[in-house]
Amino acid sequence: MRVIAITGSLRRGSFNRLLLRAAQGLAPVGMAIELFELTAIPFYNADVEEQGDPEPVRAFKEAIRAHDALLIATPEYQHGVSGVLKNALDWASRPPGQSAMQRKSAAIMGATPGRLGTARAQTQLRQSLAYTNTYTVLQPEVLVDRAHEKFDREGRLTDEPARELVGKLLHELETLTRALGQGTDSHIHATMP
Amino acid sequence: MRVIAITGSLRRGSFNRLLLRAAQGLAPVGMAIELFELTAIPFYNADVEEQGDPEPVRAFKEAIRAHDALLIATPEYQHGVSGVLKNALDWASRPPGQSAMQRKSAAIMGATPGRLGTARAQTQLRQSLAYTNTYTVLQPEVLVDRAHEKFDREGRLTDEPARELVGKLLHELETLTRALGQGTDSHIHATMP
Amino acid sequence: MRVIAITGSLRRGSFNRLLLRAAQGLAPVGMAIELFELTAIPFYNADVEEQGDPEPVRAFKEAIRAHDALLIATPEYQHGVSGVLKNALDWASRPPGQSAMQRKSAAIMGATPGRLGTARAQTQLRQSLAYTNTYTVLQPEVLVDRAHEKFDREGRLTDEPARELVGKLLHELETLTRALGQGTDSHIHATMP
Amino acid sequence: MRVIAITGSLRRGSFNRLLLRAAQGLAPVGMAIELFELTAIPFYNADVEEQGDPEPVRAFKEAIRAHDALLIATPEYQHGVSGVLKNALDWASRPPGQSAMQRKSAAIMGATPGRLGTARAQTQLRQSLAYTNTYTVLQPEVLVDRAHEKFDREGRLTDEPARELVGKLLHELETLTRALGQGTDSHIHATMP
Repeated sequence: MRVIAITGSLRRGSFNRLLLRAAQGLAPVGMAIELFELTAIPFYNADVEEQGDPEPVRAFKEAIRAHDALLIATPEYQHGVSGVLKNALDWASRPPGQSAMQRKSAAIMGATPGRLGTARAQTQLRQSLAYTNTYTVLQPEVLVDRAHEKFDREGRLTDEPARELVGKLLHELETLTRALGQGTDSHIHATMP
Repeated sequence: MRVIAITGSLRRGSFNRLLLRAAQGLAPVGMAIELFELTAIPFYNADVEEQGDPEPVRAFKEAIRAHDALLIATPEYQHGVSGVLKNALDWASRPPGQSAMQRKSAAIMGATPGRLGTARAQTQLRQSLAYTNTYTVLQPEVLVDRAHEKFDREGRLTDEPARELVGKLLHELETLTRALGQGTDSHIHATMP
Repeated sequence: MRVIAITGSLRRGSFNRLLLRAAQGLAPVGMAIELFELTAIPFYNADVEEQGDPEPVRAFKEAIRAHDALLIATPEYQHGVSGVLKNALDWASRPPGQSAMQRKSAAIMGATPGRLGTARAQTQLRQSLAYTNTYTVLQPEVLVDRAHEKFDREGRLTDEPARELVGKLLHELETLTRALGQGTDSHIHATMP
Repeated sequence: MRVIAITGSLRRGSFNRLLLRAAQGLAPVGMAIELFELTAIPFYNADVEEQGDPEPVRAFKEAIRAHDALLIATPEYQHGVSGVLKNALDWASRPPGQSAMQRKSAAIMGATPGRLGTARAQTQLRQSLAYTNTYTVLQPEVLVDRAHEKFDREGRLTDEPARELVGKLLHELETLTRALGQGTDSHIHATMP
């Protein structure tokens, strides 16, 4: 099972990128998690899209299609997802009927220095993933609060409860993806707007 | 496949109750949809719960457990779900670890005389169903706007596009429920908070 | 300035009711906070409403009208407001054009034993208060987490940072209410749907 | 009263940009609405921010500070705001304590070819504006659906009910801004996180 992992933070030392790295080490046997950086993706512009997808967008869509599922680590800005993350998803589901998000499942995590651990950003993100018809793991919720205390100097996630939750989330992602994959012949994931 | 259907409106002539009736006639072969009225369920009160579930609550939880999936027709009050519906769900997932909502899947519909067709109520409801670990059909969305024009005098849903959407929603519910049911041995639906 | 205070929890020992009591002691000079219990309010039912508001509903609407602002302490059930609270608000804004919520401002607080302190319930509540055209204090957010550690045996809020936040929230409520009240002759609060 | 107007769509012929142009013609006497294009603003990156705001960000923040209120026309992508718009706001409220959004009020509009008229994007946007402590007009809601039928070939908003709603929204924005401005000496808008 191949999982593409993205984060909505561009900061080099981002806790959310570290969280994705941690996930790579916590993945169940048989699951490969590959990080995809959103840095090169331009702002969505329908006029540009009409001329053909810019190369980084094309690469992003292709990467999504080549994987079975998405793992998203979202920061929380202003009670919502970052513009960086939302912009990438804005491209990914375009155009209607050819969405790269079709037949994908997803899991969401998030880390913040504060105490809410991206709870509200995850709620908004889940809303958008309903639009793209992307079934997303519901439980457990991985809300890493006080993130600065949970990674060591080398950027490793050392908090044991958080590590367990991430492991459980990935296990659920595997189960969900497999379950929905069995539904391929039916029309699950086939009604993308 | 047995589906329990509830609506958040107590009004006798409620469009949402009519929508559930329409769904009964549009269900795929092999799916039985049974209406459960929320009328008798009291307000959630943890002090009362401590003495044991009131009879109507016990009956509601048992009914959920006896079915494979939920079909919810929600009105929209103040951009959200009705207190009636939310209150019933408040009971259903209690106490933690014994939620009647475990291993259930769900589908949401809604009807309003206005033009938004309960879009915002459905968003809030979906949020709550994430908490109960209830996977809910993502697409198609059944937003029945201008409901007064879409049912005839006998209360039958006569609008053809709406009928098709309801049929499609039920088909997806069947597929999703079956897909997740195949995941029984794994831990899908097992992590209810 | 007269403030009506309600909570969405019916439990006798509810942290949210204790939070309202604490608010009474922390109110700025000149602000009187009066608790109104939602216990007697029945479920919203448009057929019942057509016969005339039940007495407890009538009393609730009148109480809102007799006050300048609302203070709401919300628990969080299933990532949302309780059915109890939503149901009371469902009545309060009815019928369109005669909403008791008109020309009111509001402030929201919440307490939970968990660590999110009702962040998501407050988000949903704020959404509904947008519908009723009720301007609601935006900052500070009063999210009382680990509530069991912040009240003493007599039910008094002893956590100093929480006490300060509540005081600040009430100060903002006073300022907002006064500011909007000065706008009476204009059409603020006059466009309730 | 000076209002800065932004849209989350970069498309040249965007209905939301046309809506802002219409607003310029519908503003009450004494209100000047100035369009600010988000085209040049780069993606938010905390590492970049640490080196100092890029010139277009600096210009954007300064423009906000030079105006009394914001008018935002949002498209709806994936049930939410566009990445373009969210990214601009992500910059605007940074760093904590120096937010350009302080003491601003706002109004939201939106246009889509579909029938929901950006109802869900507006809900998400309003959530983010609560974080920035930006009081936002609650009613009326300006949800321009079937936008392709409501503008003429020259891009003028010709739909009379929509024109009236926009006018009313601007009137409310004026009233709200004036009301909150009178509260300057108090601490409204002063508690930005």
